Amino acid sequence: MQRQLFTADHEAYRELVREFTAREVVPNLERWDADRLIDREVWRAAGKQGVIGLAVPEEHGGAGQPDYRYRVVVAEELARVGAASLHSSFGLQDDIIIPYVQDLGTDEQRRKWLPGMASGELIGAIAMTEPGAGSDLQGVCTTAVRDGGEWVLNGQKTFITSGINADFVIVVARTDPAAGSRGFSLIVVEDGTPGFTRGRKLDKVGLQAQDTAELFFSDVRVPVANLLGTEGRGFAHLMERLPRERMSIAVGSLASVDAVFAETREYCFSRKAFGRPIGDFQNTRFVLAEIATERDVTAAYLDACVHELNAGTLTAVDAAKAKWWASELQKRVVDRCVQLHGGYGYMLEYPVARAFVDSRIQTIYGGTTEIMKEIIGRDLATGN
Amino acid sequence: MQRQLFTADHEAYRELVREFTAREVVPNLERWDADRLIDREVWRAAGKQGVIGLAVPEEHGGAGQPDYRYRVVVAEELARVGAASLHSSFGLQDDIIIPYVQDLGTDEQRRKWLPGMASGELIGAIAMTEPGAGSDLQGVCTTAVRDGGEWVLNGQKTFITSGINADFVIVVARTDPAAGSRGFSLIVVEDGTPGFTRGRKLDKVGLQAQDTAELFFSDVRVPVANLLGTEGRGFAHLMERLPRERMSIAVGSLASVDAVFAETREYCFSRKAFGRPIGDFQNTRFVLAEIATERDVTAAYLDACVHELNAGTLTAVDAAKAKWWASELQKRVVDRCVQLHGGYGYMLEYPVARAFVDSRIQTIYGGTTEIMKEIIGRDLATGN
Amino acid sequence: MQRQLFTADHEAYRELVREFTAREVVPNLERWDADRLIDREVWRAAGKQGVIGLAVPEEHGGAGQPDYRYRVVVAEELARVGAASLHSSFGLQDDIIIPYVQDLGTDEQRRKWLPGMASGELIGAIAMTEPGAGSDLQGVCTTAVRDGGEWVLNGQKTFITSGINADFVIVVARTDPAAGSRGFSLIVVEDGTPGFTRGRKLDKVGLQAQDTAELFFSDVRVPVANLLGTEGRGFAHLMERLPRERMSIAVGSLASVDAVFAETREYCFSRKAFGRPIGDFQNTRFVLAEIATERDVTAAYLDACVHELNAGTLTAVDAAKAKWWASELQKRVVDRCVQLHGGYGYMLEYPVARAFVDSRIQTIYGGTTEIMKEIIGRDLATGN
Amino acid sequence: MQRQLFTADHEAYRELVREFTAREVVPNLERWDADRLIDREVWRAAGKQGVIGLAVPEEHGGAGQPDYRYRVVVAEELARVGAASLHSSFGLQDDIIIPYVQDLGTDEQRRKWLPGMASGELIGAIAMTEPGAGSDLQGVCTTAVRDGGEWVLNGQKTFITSGINADFVIVVARTDPAAGSRGFSLIVVEDGTPGFTRGRKLDKVGLQAQDTAELFFSDVRVPVANLLGTEGRGFAHLMERLPRERMSIAVGSLASVDAVFAETREYCFSRKAFGRPIGDFQNTRFVLAEIATERDVTAAYLDACVHELNAGTLTAVDAAKAKWWASELQKRVVDRCVQLHGGYGYMLEYPVARAFVDSRIQTIYGGTTEIMKEIIGRDLATGN
Repeated sequence: MQRQLFTADHEAYRELVREFTAREVVPNLERWDADRLIDREVWRAAGKQGVIGLAVPEEHGGAGQPDYRYRVVVAEELARVGAASLHSSFGLQDDIIIPYVQDLGTDEQRRKWLPGMASGELIGAIAMTEPGAGSDLQGVCTTAVRDGGEWVLNGQKTFITSGINADFVIVVARTDPAAGSRGFSLIVVEDGTPGFTRGRKLDKVGLQAQDTAELFFSDVRVPVANLLGTEGRGFAHLMERLPRERMSIAVGSLASVDAVFAETREYCFSRKAFGRPIGDFQNTRFVLAEIATERDVTAAYLDACVHELNAGTLTAVDAAKAKWWASELQKRVVDRCVQLHGGYGYMLEYPVARAFVDSRIQTIYGGTTEIMKEIIGRDLATGN
Repeated sequence: MQRQLFTADHEAYRELVREFTAREVVPNLERWDADRLIDREVWRAAGKQGVIGLAVPEEHGGAGQPDYRYRVVVAEELARVGAASLHSSFGLQDDIIIPYVQDLGTDEQRRKWLPGMASGELIGAIAMTEPGAGSDLQGVCTTAVRDGGEWVLNGQKTFITSGINADFVIVVARTDPAAGSRGFSLIVVEDGTPGFTRGRKLDKVGLQAQDTAELFFSDVRVPVANLLGTEGRGFAHLMERLPRERMSIAVGSLASVDAVFAETREYCFSRKAFGRPIGDFQNTRFVLAEIATERDVTAAYLDACVHELNAGTLTAVDAAKAKWWASELQKRVVDRCVQLHGGYGYMLEYPVARAFVDSRIQTIYGGTTEIMKEIIGRDLATGN
Repeated sequence: MQRQLFTADHEAYRELVREFTAREVVPNLERWDADRLIDREVWRAAGKQGVIGLAVPEEHGGAGQPDYRYRVVVAEELARVGAASLHSSFGLQDDIIIPYVQDLGTDEQRRKWLPGMASGELIGAIAMTEPGAGSDLQGVCTTAVRDGGEWVLNGQKTFITSGINADFVIVVARTDPAAGSRGFSLIVVEDGTPGFTRGRKLDKVGLQAQDTAELFFSDVRVPVANLLGTEGRGFAHLMERLPRERMSIAVGSLASVDAVFAETREYCFSRKAFGRPIGDFQNTRFVLAEIATERDVTAAYLDACVHELNAGTLTAVDAAKAKWWASELQKRVVDRCVQLHGGYGYMLEYPVARAFVDSRIQTIYGGTTEIMKEIIGRDLATGN
Repeated sequence: MQRQLFTADHEAYRELVREFTAREVVPNLERWDADRLIDREVWRAAGKQGVIGLAVPEEHGGAGQPDYRYRVVVAEELARVGAASLHSSFGLQDDIIIPYVQDLGTDEQRRKWLPGMASGELIGAIAMTEPGAGSDLQGVCTTAVRDGGEWVLNGQKTFITSGINADFVIVVARTDPAAGSRGFSLIVVEDGTPGFTRGRKLDKVGLQAQDTAELFFSDVRVPVANLLGTEGRGFAHLMERLPRERMSIAVGSLASVDAVFAETREYCFSRKAFGRPIGDFQNTRFVLAEIATERDVTAAYLDACVHELNAGTLTAVDAAKAKWWASELQKRVVDRCVQLHGGYGYMLEYPVARAFVDSRIQTIYGGTTEIMKEIIGRDLATGN
């Protein structure tokens, strides 16, 4: 089915992104994996080209282009070259950090952080998860206590994407421990603030170039002006932005499916076994047919979600459906494609093998599949 | 997600159809099942109301409305009241027989059969399958030999929907046994023609009211004017119309999913076990959440297919994807809903139990899931 | 793999049972289905041949043979001829009713009911489920109140196997409503007792010949001697006997898998499509290979359970594993075999179609799959 | 269910192996992974303790103990400490190389290689797979040409386990290119032979410490005495030994399932989310119950296969069933256990994460799942 999502403008942008990945990404992928860190050069190049920061208003150095379809293009082109770690980093910045600052920030905060994020000079992170509190925000123990003109933070975070590179971190902290879910606030801690230290870069199954880290806050003092959004409404701020964050993962999943499937299909009709192409075997054809179908079905739904996201009407429930469905699809598809590659599917020099290790986190982060089903199931219990 | 498929016109039509089902269908369902036959009264009522024959040109007594979305409305409303046999019968008439006569018929043939089909007076059937040749048209043995101004047919057909009720049957026959797939033609045999007899009404797992039957042709003579379409192009005629036929099944599957899911959701949040609603159990909520997600994802794809069908751009491959995916979804969903009902799910007085027995044919007729995967897989082998 | 379960004695018994099914069962199957009732003649014939009642002590007219492997033989031979309703009826009698009377009964009760059950003259039933309380015994509302030398029963039961035929029914009733799970007792109500009436014979998806019915108890008075087991220990009595009941279903599931698979395999390598046996298609071969594997794996586990059942060491948890696994396997296998039959799989004249409708209850009755998983999951939480 | 497989002798051996893993394996695992090589020290220690080489006849330095249950014990104990790479290496040696030399070797060959393998001084490998010929032995291109008293080998092999460490390699080569499957022979090439070079140590998804490598043979000359088995019967020699090789993988899979499940169960009932143990959630309990059931069912089958292997009666078809079923189970279980761990499941410091990357090869090497299904399916087509 001819995809209806994109216009000529998006396709023109795709050319630009594709040229960018060829020049700035592909030559560096192996090095980033070996270093287990993405260097800052690619951020600046991406900022210059509008590959990141497109939605930042022009007054703050961006293109003021909020159409999410441009983000879909970036996801697809990064997946096409297997740059999952970079996609995850850019996605965090563009789909989470920038919208937070833009939507919740004061004028001063916007002026301070948006231009650097648009240019790729500044990298942000958000610190929600704590050891002992995965998808469960109620388990957050990090505290921020008001002391004169400052907030004093204490606590520990883990699984923080861009945890090593981040120039500033939006920290989810309890500012009123007695207030339950209404006692959280978002407070920005900048690199170099005394008491703020980075822990280990975590050794993961995949996403090797992604600097996932632990962060520690010990009597960290930041000015009260570093409060992002409204005091006590941190939880609500997080909830309101979840649909976009979850679409970011869903879209990345589908992009990876497309890339892996294209490569696998090519492999199956060129690689021979028992004297004929693997694709001549009915089982192979059936597996490919199943993937092609599931892919198309999923794309139709995600495209509809992207339109709703653009229109501001995407519900948390629909985003939850997109997130778990697309990420589980990715797992299923990548695993089957590994199998079709035989022994080569286990060798990291093959893109499908990297896609396999990179994909396993997708059903976990940004809210596990189980959390998504809870959200949907509770809505069915009470809903329309 | 708010469905985008329908306009106010379709919703107005839905009201009409809903009123029709309440008056003409619901009071008769049990009787039709017990009789194992749908009586002709409902056909005439449906013709009068425009529930069938909507696409027949006005000059032949219809509304000249080819928009397939009206057919989707009918499918949904029949599923809502559990009238699967009737949906199957009407679907055959509206999605297969009428288009065949309309697209392939001569002016005379149209004048002869369309008005009766628009009014519900005439019921048509198509006879493809033979014992020993299921999804495999190459196995068709029925022959039609030209003898002067007549075709002489000999052979046997099976699994013929509306086989008992049909006033005329479009028979797929070999007119040139030496010509392989180019040797088939479509020939209309009318009720009462000597040598044309009906066999047993087949006893099926479900769709009890549906008169599925065997047909026998023994030196059946029909005028050459009964050739529908071009001699020798019967196979091509069948192929060209498959997308619409398969969408008919896919749309029926989704309609059934919607009806069964709505009833099951209601059941789960009202029925209690161990002192609380079944829907309070996490497993129940997860099952419902999974169904809700799969349903929405599938609807997005089918809606896109319906638009393409309306535009005349729906490919055989995309229709094959819709057909197997939606019918397998139906099987999966109905089965899980039976389980959620516990013992009641096995009692035919519950709609979910009837939906269960009715649904099992969906992945088989109109081309099995396996045939659909072959179509898709071969396209991947050679395709774009 | 050569099955190790049976000895020559069991194989000799198999010959006897096979001769019995050929003579007494096969000629009557269609009639029983049409009547929706199994006639009593076959019970008496089975009693005479030792096809039922084998475990009844010799003093009460049985063979005193408790080895469960003879029951496995009966299950296999009944499945081989597609007599699912009869298997369900005999299974209830031999695996549930007889053990209850034998284990819990007084000498008088044994003398009263065992000989008739051994000879096939007497049919028993057990009434647990009530409308509104499926797998949940805590929801039982039927009461039995002591009044002098009598119990007075009031309440309603549903889904009662052999509900129409039963000469006596073991009723689960609350004798001490304040005592929670310790307030249940088992009380026998005999046919003809005033106030005991049978409701509708329920119309089911399958098991047509099985007389599943509702039972009503309105001021039914029975002598106190009709208490089976200990007053207040009804719940415990039920629990202690669950492993055997669940094995009965599991063994029946595997027997059905074997019968359906044998027939399907035969079909696939004789039936042709597209000019060659269906079994020539790789997808067919893979499906058959998957079934063959799952079947063997499951048989190894069930055989081990049968040995433990014979030794009296089978735990409720292991029986729960056997029950849900084997019954879900049956569903999965029968469904796939239907699909391999194409349109014929939907025609009730084919054994696979009957197996399909008969099989759907297996994951529901005797404790749903979900209940089984709860039992196992709780054991994991607390267990060894 | 109490496992019946082991006697007190096996349990005593388990103590010995457990002491060995604690002392020799656990302290070195991280280093081996970092080095991407297992050092030879552990081989010698294992030889000394009888952890490897147990089946080697006493006259050649082993214990002459062919009971495969001792190998099962080793698999379980290595899995318990997460030593998948070591298990794979030892498994190759004990389940493949030693039996080849023992069964096919001349007295001289046995005297030459068995004592070193029993003591852990010598490591063997077998080189079947070539680039472009995965599970398909017919695609083997490596040749061995007789030249006087020598064989001259030319060709290339890939995916060779122990490819770097091996002191000698059994090479599958064509000695008669015109003879099809009867033209293969097994020829031993020892380390240091001119023209025999090792290629890259392949970078894999998991099994990091396992030295999987490419091997090159360029005019490699070995004495004719290095022919193992009968000239031209190489293919038959391979086939005859497949059941044992496949059981080795199946047993390793189940051992890994046991280890991962034990750790995950512990995690679920200690780790808290939303204020209570994860295991309190019904979904978690159901997942654990499903794993427990599948594990027990599979163990029953594998135990039966082990008995047949010991008795010499295990067929290739039954071994194929065990191989694909157990390895697919492992994949399924480990993946679900990762999910239950949430973010921690993606961190390599957690055993479940390592198990995840290690497990993915199991359904591929030693014959893919698809090859196994072909073997089983063809047997069903022709078989008993």
